[in-house]
Amino acid sequence: MLGEIIAIGDELTSGRINNTTSSFAAHHLFEAGFDIYAMHTIGDTPELIGEALKRALNRVDFVLVTGGLGPTDDDLTTEAVSKALNRPTMPNLEILSLIRQHLEKNSSQSASSLDKLAWLPEGAETLNPQSKMAGFQLIHGDKPVFFLPGIPHQMRTLLIEQVLPRLSTWYNGKQLTSIQRVYKIFGKSESEINHKIVQLDLGDDVTIGYYPVFPDVHLSMIIRGSDRKITQALAKESSRRIKDKLGSFIYGKDRESMASVVGSLLARQNKTFAVAESCTGGLVSHLITSVAGSSDYYLGGVTTYANSMKHTYLGVENELLDRVGAVSHEVAEAMALGMREKSKADISISITGIAGPGGGSVEKPVGTVFIGLSHRSDTVVHHCNFSGTRYEIQHLTAQTALNLVREHLLL
Amino acid sequence: MLGEIIAIGDELTSGRINNTTSSFAAHHLFEAGFDIYAMHTIGDTPELIGEALKRALNRVDFVLVTGGLGPTDDDLTTEAVSKALNRPTMPNLEILSLIRQHLEKNSSQSASSLDKLAWLPEGAETLNPQSKMAGFQLIHGDKPVFFLPGIPHQMRTLLIEQVLPRLSTWYNGKQLTSIQRVYKIFGKSESEINHKIVQLDLGDDVTIGYYPVFPDVHLSMIIRGSDRKITQALAKESSRRIKDKLGSFIYGKDRESMASVVGSLLARQNKTFAVAESCTGGLVSHLITSVAGSSDYYLGGVTTYANSMKHTYLGVENELLDRVGAVSHEVAEAMALGMREKSKADISISITGIAGPGGGSVEKPVGTVFIGLSHRSDTVVHHCNFSGTRYEIQHLTAQTALNLVREHLLL
Repeated sequence: MLGEIIAIGDELTSGRINNTTSSFAAHHLFEAGFDIYAMHTIGDTPELIGEALKRALNRVDFVLVTGGLGPTDDDLTTEAVSKALNRPTMPNLEILSLIRQHLEKNSSQSASSLDKLAWLPEGAETLNPQSKMAGFQLIHGDKPVFFLPGIPHQMRTLLIEQVLPRLSTWYNGKQLTSIQRVYKIFGKSESEINHKIVQLDLGDDVTIGYYPVFPDVHLSMIIRGSDRKITQALAKESSRRIKDKLGSFIYGKDRESMASVVGSLLARQNKTFAVAESCTGGLVSHLITSVAGSSDYYLGGVTTYANSMKHTYLGVENELLDRVGAVSHEVAEAMALGMREKSKADISISITGIAGPGGGSVEKPVGTVFIGLSHRSDTVVHHCNFSGTRYEIQHLTAQTALNLVREHLLL
Repeated sequence: MLGEIIAIGDELTSGRINNTTSSFAAHHLFEAGFDIYAMHTIGDTPELIGEALKRALNRVDFVLVTGGLGPTDDDLTTEAVSKALNRPTMPNLEILSLIRQHLEKNSSQSASSLDKLAWLPEGAETLNPQSKMAGFQLIHGDKPVFFLPGIPHQMRTLLIEQVLPRLSTWYNGKQLTSIQRVYKIFGKSESEINHKIVQLDLGDDVTIGYYPVFPDVHLSMIIRGSDRKITQALAKESSRRIKDKLGSFIYGKDRESMASVVGSLLARQNKTFAVAESCTGGLVSHLITSVAGSSDYYLGGVTTYANSMKHTYLGVENELLDRVGAVSHEVAEAMALGMREKSKADISISITGIAGPGGGSVEKPVGTVFIGLSHRSDTVVHHCNFSGTRYEIQHLTAQTALNLVREHLLL
């Protein structure tokens, strides 16, 4: 049960509009048990439309075509299909009568351009004419071909309400069950994770993919089978083995983020949290407060870029700053402690480092970062050496700091 | 000068990841004067990769391939290309030595999987090995083929810095002079800007495009012509007229951001800056410190999510908080003043509001925000009503606050 998706429109090939409909369709078709062999985006060029459709019909079981169904001169899909599949266009009487009704109420529009919408290739069955959305189905050589409008919300509605139910009837007996999980991993590279997972030998029915989504790696597990119960059992067992193997390097799954996971742990343990940042400049605070409801556990934070601010807001002694420098174990410790005590938070973290591109030295190169974590009974400082651009160092530092809080809360 | 784009990855054909890189590439290639004949998205299937590449080479002048260059088992692009174009893979010594250096520092990683990155098809020229990004160029039958990583920020960097300059040399003789400017606009909608620019009647040689890049709108002006001097003169004259028409709604151009523009103004006027945030949770501070060199003018900030923090760190009276509430004109004023006086900054801003989705009321609905701006001689509070998601309200607020600082510094 393999399909192809063809998206049509000059606005797509010029990059003026981001094609979101093809991914949407692929995602929902995939979830429904269909595989996508390829997706194509082409301009409003009749020859290319015909060629792409004929090639797809030769190699897959169904085709979804989006775009180019409107009333204007640059909408050429119907004509192109008619020519390529040798099916002359005919007027569809139901659509024609709807257009007539519409024109009676809106006399300003010219009839001729709208009439175009009623002329469909021979054998076409309209998907939902009452909805006033273009869209039809053709059965060509026993293979269903769906034509949907390119307008995203119309395409989405017709895909879900018309195409998926029709396709599932079409392939009724043969449908497979498919289960997908995404695990989010921080602190291990794609190849290290791959190396560990390969050892598990999960079998042919389990497809594993690795996707670096900086600064994380996402591991996707997909399981397909003809029997629903067996597939579910295999998914459960494979999940358990992956989680055992990667341990706490997996910080969350599916839609969770590091900040939302830390937030849930804080809320569950009824603990409050505060952050003192220097080189990350408010990024940690921003990530935490991107989560709705974070005011339940997050008191706030201080970004002390200048040394004078570290003294004024966190009580770091000027003598200490002069002696060891702002980027140091001692200052990180004093920042974390000062933040926790003054804010009265249960847990605080502090960050001081050099994000670059300037400011590095031989002893403390760009990427040197100290992260302090203070709680009731202790204050611990971690020394990290990151590499990358300013953006990368800031984001690696923020994710590492949040991960330290997560690990502390899991103890 | 016609090209095709091929994006590779099972994560794309399953719709798990939205393919944004192809549109990005199409857009920038189009702006640079190249047309895109078709874009394809296919899974990590060697036969299909080879077939798509060979077909593209038969009908267009250049091909861009993204994805599948990583070190793991499911990265199959290089192998597929090697087979399809009959170019055996060979080790690239420069990349091999970089991998060896990397492994010396990170001994935990297995060498064998990374070594894969150094084996490239015969004749491949790496794009920028020092950047540690995969990516190479092949010349096949006089046609350039570019292979870029699928990771969006790497792909974008290599496209802009390597592919576009190489392509423009390649087609040297035939190329037209083309000048592009991007103006960044905040506070006017796409249609308002369009309405104003249409009145200018800039002529057929000037192509104007509008791209909403939340929370801004970007206006792109492209001028193409065969004579370099005439094109440059037209660009200069058109720029002047656009800037006259839109005035200070244009906050910057090309690679500038609101934070970098504010930063430049602060640096030039030798003024220091501090920020007290509530509902934006550190976002303003993060935006400012994303700019390299921001420590020259940015002292730091405070994120006071809890009321207790507003009292402790900004000196806002508890009585005031009880009487008028944290989201109020009076508290915004007290926060800005407290921030400036305690930090000794020349200028401070304060933000207090309701980002949602919870926390709204009839008197103060979600999106109610007060922004204070304090400088030596005055403290002014602006009352805003934003709408949108939590993400949108936070980003609109942050951009508005920075824009208020910009307008103040321009006075």
